[in-house]
Amino acid sequence: MTTTTIGAMLASSPARGLAADLDRLGEAVEAAGACAAACSACADACLGEPATAELVRCIRSDLVCAELCATTASLLSRPGAHDAAVLRPLLEACIAACVACAEECERHAGMHEHCRLCAEACRRCETACRDLIAALG
Amino acid sequence: MTTTTIGAMLASSPARGLAADLDRLGEAVEAAGACAAACSACADACLGEPATAELVRCIRSDLVCAELCATTASLLSRPGAHDAAVLRPLLEACIAACVACAEECERHAGMHEHCRLCAEACRRCETACRDLIAALG
Amino acid sequence: MTTTTIGAMLASSPARGLAADLDRLGEAVEAAGACAAACSACADACLGEPATAELVRCIRSDLVCAELCATTASLLSRPGAHDAAVLRPLLEACIAACVACAEECERHAGMHEHCRLCAEACRRCETACRDLIAALG
Amino acid sequence: MTTTTIGAMLASSPARGLAADLDRLGEAVEAAGACAAACSACADACLGEPATAELVRCIRSDLVCAELCATTASLLSRPGAHDAAVLRPLLEACIAACVACAEECERHAGMHEHCRLCAEACRRCETACRDLIAALG
Repeated sequence: MTTTTIGAMLASSPARGLAADLDRLGEAVEAAGACAAACSACADACLGEPATAELVRCIRSDLVCAELCATTASLLSRPGAHDAAVLRPLLEACIAACVACAEECERHAGMHEHCRLCAEACRRCETACRDLIAALG
Repeated sequence: MTTTTIGAMLASSPARGLAADLDRLGEAVEAAGACAAACSACADACLGEPATAELVRCIRSDLVCAELCATTASLLSRPGAHDAAVLRPLLEACIAACVACAEECERHAGMHEHCRLCAEACRRCETACRDLIAALG
Repeated sequence: MTTTTIGAMLASSPARGLAADLDRLGEAVEAAGACAAACSACADACLGEPATAELVRCIRSDLVCAELCATTASLLSRPGAHDAAVLRPLLEACIAACVACAEECERHAGMHEHCRLCAEACRRCETACRDLIAALG
Repeated sequence: MTTTTIGAMLASSPARGLAADLDRLGEAVEAAGACAAACSACADACLGEPATAELVRCIRSDLVCAELCATTASLLSRPGAHDAAVLRPLLEACIAACVACAEECERHAGMHEHCRLCAEACRRCETACRDLIAALG
């Protein structure tokens, strides 16, 4: 059952893409989109903290992850253009960026709520991308 | 009350940005992100329809709207970087793209469910951006 | 005469778009693309400087400008999708972001060569966008 | 010798990144940026051709390649954020998208000058990304 807008959009498309399971694809689009927004917001919040200098690695990993997740969400949302030769390494790059960002944010999660929330968004996206790679066969 | 991840992220940021009302800002970030995904998916679905040639205007407005909404979501999610001289015309551009895409999609809404859903996402984003411009004062 | 790849691409398109002058359009696409890369590189370089905390405003304006310029380059490169109601405010937002980023970078230009070069790229993009708005009539 | 703006930007950064050879990195940033613009312009031009329906695969591969190349250019331009675990699969995804787009565009190169030019831009980007992966060691 697809209850989200993007799920319904994917269900109404004449193209099927590589993912047999539309719910899994829809979850990956949503998780990647939410992670992109969380990472952008976390980078901006870190730049506003008094201890900016200690958050440089966090800001950098936020910015990389935000950009990769936005691109991943966009390419996944077009099943007619799915190409395993492109999607598989892109999902791997997205997973690597999510893991790096989550690990860095988790180090500051006790101090900064935005880092704690961002790490959660990264882990959700990591899981959704891993599930999708498994579904690509 | 901010119940979404992005709402909680914005509430935990040391930066306040231009929007006094965080719920309104969070709704704009979510609406723009959802509209970007819907427009990408609609463009791809239109490219898969037998009558592609009749959907060229729809595809083009989808692609413009997808890109502008993704950028709008990203810039809005960084309150510490808010600058009314940038945000006001960007929101106006985003509204214009949403209106153009909604009007085109509404022409095909009876035929294509993806166009109907995309038009809804565009109207939601249009409304959220208008509310935010009003809040900028 | 269009000697660049993007100039030749625009000349070979069946669509004419809003800009009567293809050289001016091509220059705007190139200037915006170069500015996006310069701003991304400047933000990253600023994050690597010992005095990161003093460069927070610069980093933030770099990131906003990078994203807006990338979107502007992308939308301008599609003449068949040109829509003055979208392009005019988008160019205004891009100009405002370029001016803000140039002014901030110019404050650090004597200290950081990357800021000096980034300010130059912003001024070139600002000029190209102003020329294009004038050409839109 | 780095004669381009982005080359000079990278040379003035305190961060060195993964690429020992700055010229190679600068060429990849420029090639990816130029390919993104060429692919956006080619997709739009194809949408304006009378035989749009025969160009659907070309439009789709253009759009995927445009987005991946823009992201690749952006992430490469930030040496302080370089992470081989992210860059290697991203470059592989970018190469796969460039190859797919070049092959499709080459099929139409005799008919459409924009496809011929776009294929050239894709091949240049493919080469630059392969050279960079080799340099990552």
